[in-house]
Amino acid sequence: MSVTPRQLANAIRALSMDAVQAANSGHPGMPMGMADVATELFTNHLKFDPLQPKWADRDRFVLSAGHGSMLIYSLLHLTGYARPTIEDIANFRQLHSPCAGHPENFELAGVEATTGPLGSGLATAVGMAIAERHLNATFGNDVVDHRTWVLAGDGCLMEGVNHEAIGLAGHLKLGKLIVLWDDNRITIDGAVSLSSSEDVMARYAATGWHTVACDGHDAASIAKALEAAKADPRPSIVQCTTIIGFGAPNKQGTSATHGSALGNDEVAATRKELGWTSEPFVIPTDIAEAWRAAGHRGTAVRSAWEARLVAHPDRAEFERRMAGKLPADFSLQPYLEGLIANPQKVATRKASEMVLGPINDQLAETIGGSADLTGSNNTKTKGQAPLTADDYSGRYIYYGIREFGMACAMNGLALHGGVIPYGGTFLVFSDYCRAAIRLSALQQQRVVYVMTHDSIGLGEDGPTHQPVEHLMSLRVMPNIDVYRPCDVIETAECWQLSLEKADGPSLLALSREGLPQLRTDISKNFSALGAYRLKPAAAARKVVLIASGSEVEIAVATAAKLEEAGIGADVVSMPSWERFDAQDEDYKDGILPADALLVSIEAGTTIGWERYVGRKGLRFGLDGFGASAPVKALYDHFGLTADKIAPQIIGALTH
Amino acid sequence: MSVTPRQLANAIRALSMDAVQAANSGHPGMPMGMADVATELFTNHLKFDPLQPKWADRDRFVLSAGHGSMLIYSLLHLTGYARPTIEDIANFRQLHSPCAGHPENFELAGVEATTGPLGSGLATAVGMAIAERHLNATFGNDVVDHRTWVLAGDGCLMEGVNHEAIGLAGHLKLGKLIVLWDDNRITIDGAVSLSSSEDVMARYAATGWHTVACDGHDAASIAKALEAAKADPRPSIVQCTTIIGFGAPNKQGTSATHGSALGNDEVAATRKELGWTSEPFVIPTDIAEAWRAAGHRGTAVRSAWEARLVAHPDRAEFERRMAGKLPADFSLQPYLEGLIANPQKVATRKASEMVLGPINDQLAETIGGSADLTGSNNTKTKGQAPLTADDYSGRYIYYGIREFGMACAMNGLALHGGVIPYGGTFLVFSDYCRAAIRLSALQQQRVVYVMTHDSIGLGEDGPTHQPVEHLMSLRVMPNIDVYRPCDVIETAECWQLSLEKADGPSLLALSREGLPQLRTDISKNFSALGAYRLKPAAAARKVVLIASGSEVEIAVATAAKLEEAGIGADVVSMPSWERFDAQDEDYKDGILPADALLVSIEAGTTIGWERYVGRKGLRFGLDGFGASAPVKALYDHFGLTADKIAPQIIGALTH
Repeated sequence: MSVTPRQLANAIRALSMDAVQAANSGHPGMPMGMADVATELFTNHLKFDPLQPKWADRDRFVLSAGHGSMLIYSLLHLTGYARPTIEDIANFRQLHSPCAGHPENFELAGVEATTGPLGSGLATAVGMAIAERHLNATFGNDVVDHRTWVLAGDGCLMEGVNHEAIGLAGHLKLGKLIVLWDDNRITIDGAVSLSSSEDVMARYAATGWHTVACDGHDAASIAKALEAAKADPRPSIVQCTTIIGFGAPNKQGTSATHGSALGNDEVAATRKELGWTSEPFVIPTDIAEAWRAAGHRGTAVRSAWEARLVAHPDRAEFERRMAGKLPADFSLQPYLEGLIANPQKVATRKASEMVLGPINDQLAETIGGSADLTGSNNTKTKGQAPLTADDYSGRYIYYGIREFGMACAMNGLALHGGVIPYGGTFLVFSDYCRAAIRLSALQQQRVVYVMTHDSIGLGEDGPTHQPVEHLMSLRVMPNIDVYRPCDVIETAECWQLSLEKADGPSLLALSREGLPQLRTDISKNFSALGAYRLKPAAAARKVVLIASGSEVEIAVATAAKLEEAGIGADVVSMPSWERFDAQDEDYKDGILPADALLVSIEAGTTIGWERYVGRKGLRFGLDGFGASAPVKALYDHFGLTADKIAPQIIGALTH
Repeated sequence: MSVTPRQLANAIRALSMDAVQAANSGHPGMPMGMADVATELFTNHLKFDPLQPKWADRDRFVLSAGHGSMLIYSLLHLTGYARPTIEDIANFRQLHSPCAGHPENFELAGVEATTGPLGSGLATAVGMAIAERHLNATFGNDVVDHRTWVLAGDGCLMEGVNHEAIGLAGHLKLGKLIVLWDDNRITIDGAVSLSSSEDVMARYAATGWHTVACDGHDAASIAKALEAAKADPRPSIVQCTTIIGFGAPNKQGTSATHGSALGNDEVAATRKELGWTSEPFVIPTDIAEAWRAAGHRGTAVRSAWEARLVAHPDRAEFERRMAGKLPADFSLQPYLEGLIANPQKVATRKASEMVLGPINDQLAETIGGSADLTGSNNTKTKGQAPLTADDYSGRYIYYGIREFGMACAMNGLALHGGVIPYGGTFLVFSDYCRAAIRLSALQQQRVVYVMTHDSIGLGEDGPTHQPVEHLMSLRVMPNIDVYRPCDVIETAECWQLSLEKADGPSLLALSREGLPQLRTDISKNFSALGAYRLKPAAAARKVVLIASGSEVEIAVATAAKLEEAGIGADVVSMPSWERFDAQDEDYKDGILPADALLVSIEAGTTIGWERYVGRKGLRFGLDGFGASAPVKALYDHFGLTADKIAPQIIGALTH
């Protein structure tokens, strides 16, 4: 070949430095440093077809060091993806360009995951690698047999989630997962040695990983390391010794190349250093053709795979699952009818386990799990075998005490496709995985968070374990539906809505304590309305009580006291703010009439409930931390009983 | 001694199983498993004086595995602390007992940190150990020379924050930090091997730690390991091989002992097994006396220390700092006067760096840092030398890419006392350390979070880096003051308030982009009011514009357009919801008059602003994710300009 690997890599370097320079914003250092490694990977190892970016059995490539986004944009363009075009790249970091500051999975087909929040990409890739092994175990080598590659920087390795992710990957022996570590010894603040002294390779080895090193600027050395990684049955980390900003004669090897444009003078000097004579955004024909040829390697492989898929007995099921469609006959109605016939007073966490029975029976694509709270989160159903290194066909993951790692892995499971992940922890520990929940929402992925012990109702474990602000803090996050069902029926309804939402995550906040079955009407999914009148006023309506979850029972009792006093009171159950906000104004005005005293009851922060009850409404809840005591004592202590609430409402009406 | 170590340990076991049984709630397994280790530590190694629990030079003991709270309650009682009494213990997990489900630093003097959220205690202890070395470097061996001990379980080690914490501790060579790992091979879901295969000791060694092992039920073996740990210049982890629930003949060694009462039968069987014949909550006299004697070991040591302190030339400064009092003459007024004389248009992150100059000059107790964003967070001032393993006297910590570890360490710095920690990251990455921020608030510690790049105003980095929901999600957290100053003056005011709040954390949300100096009046700290009229209406007031941070400038421009149209508009700057909510009703009604259209402008979620503008007010912001583009393009795209806002207000007034 007349075009050398270095020349191919220099095309990445040129596009990266020129795009960052044009935007006067961005991160040239990583793409320039890792260009040689990425070139070897994309030209000789990665299985992909730019003409069919969503080919199910492609290798996944995750740029965990997402700030180096110009690396992936360059690679996608050079290998022949329809987007980004060279104009897209020239508009790097401008409004409406798919070449955003950090790679976004919803902008470009070749971007497998949104990355940028450090560490999350690698942890997400662990989920993709699990999905691959699980589907391989289900559908066989003929249709599922691919690798997951990750490019990670020091930031990805230093973040805590790295520990959780590699612990899980090592334990599950995900041998088709390969991490390319950009070991450039530089962070934003300066040398890595300013803040870290660890032996990264020894740490990975301690966690069950295969380790191998290479000179990240020597194609032969890189190739040898990648072959070793591919051959090893353990997950592999490849230590790629590189120079950040490689090619920039005055700035390379320093943090000055990390997050700023090089400047016109240094860009010119780099052109000279690299022997790159083209204008910005122009790729010499021979180099462009060599890249296209490398990109089209995969077409024949993909065609052969398609032939195998056509012949596969489970083709329809595989395609359904990869398309993310539920079976046409999926239904929870028989289960609901059983509840009407035989009402249940159970905790909603138990109700969740109950409805997961028919869900897991009907949906072969669900993969459950918990961050070491299986018996508390009630996430495991009978017949769910564990997914282990010995048997990847299992459908339950013991994630260990790794909330953030679990949530990232669930994102990866969902992004890979073919599975629907759900996983549990206590609601208060949503704080541990909040950054991943946000990425579920931003990436529009169907991940179901099963968050139990959702209030002071958990009792004795006390304030560290009692969520107060968590419901509200999750409701303000874009693109996630937060549900807090009040009984066994609503729990099933909310589960159904969560499964049907293919373009975003849902979170179920569930009680530890038993709750009566309040619903008698299952003629439609009332939870889909977000809020609805559970019990209409008997006397002339003066009050509307709005509650969620475990406090709906209290609202019902409060309404009874008000009605005894001749005050008509609606009880509105509001399992979901997001769903209610999506209703039309007439419906909303009907639920929250202007001529009634509006009252919210929820065992959490009252800040925010003004949205529905207004500045003059009453808000019952708690705005400080909880306490350690049995549940009944706590509700009484914090004034959340009908006996304490009803007189205040009566008082407000008579003033 | 006629009383054996095992008998002493059995007192812990008896109190623990009996208290959990009485409450029918709690975690007996860990206290029973680690009783022998804890006995060796408290009777022969730990430096403390139950008569002076807050003695500054005591060893710190952090029960990171906080669910085993009966261990520390037993130890405090047995060694002679005033609280908990035996009645407190008998009321374990009941309302108003200081023996809460998880240990709370504000309930008992001997509880050094609130623990329970796994991993956080160990990471907090790292901060305590840093504080110790720093104060040692400042005040010398005579007054500061103590160890920090941690008892951690598998959960603490598996959590991601463990990686961050031990990386920092290993890098800083915190040789006086010793972790006792309760290696019982059991988690809630079952065997550790269900979810983890890592070689923990190898991982710690890879991070610069000294490792040593012992039989956790053999006093001599434990003693030998503790001596080895004390002698090594590196931080140490002691692998204590134990049996969870040791002594319960039918349940020990299983997860059944972890989080539930043993049951009356098993409690009786355990009494027999241990040869413990006393009734519940009765300690045999000889054992009680032996424990008291062990507890009073420290009194002479403490007396000698007090004599040294009295003779120390910097005694007054040491005592001031340990008391957490700012110098009486601390003042930012000269700095503010300089700004009035010479106004500055700077980003508020830069304004923060500017005011940190006089702060760090006047307050020797501040210790700054950043999670590898020093130049972006503007957290380092001239003259701040780094705190390193070679020189602990430095006042700036390069925390590395470890947001959660940083925040936990700051909690530990504050809990230790003698220092005031502040540290930075991007506001969006508050998600990474949110669990620690909550612990700052719950523990009532003075930690200042410097969170920059506080909106879409950061521009090109795009939605992964643009906080939208973060301000609101932090405002709903109890006991933290969230500030979003609008200019260089407010930034100084908010810093002053943060430093003066000794009983809780503060968070400063700061802009990346330059903002004009809007304030001209420095006659008092207006930010202390939370919200105030920055610019009163000129024409008859019909509108009140309420904004924070970078949007105050937009509110001012919007008001100008309204006034041009003859519509009087107040501009209210609202740097802090918490401060405003604390004002009296008259003041609040004056700022938010009932007869005006109330309008909020903030580049974040609009959900929640109904609190001030009501259901009928107007709320400008963004309720979806941001985008990648230059800042001006983004504000225009999301409609946050005076040109786009003013017409909508005029429209609302005329309908």
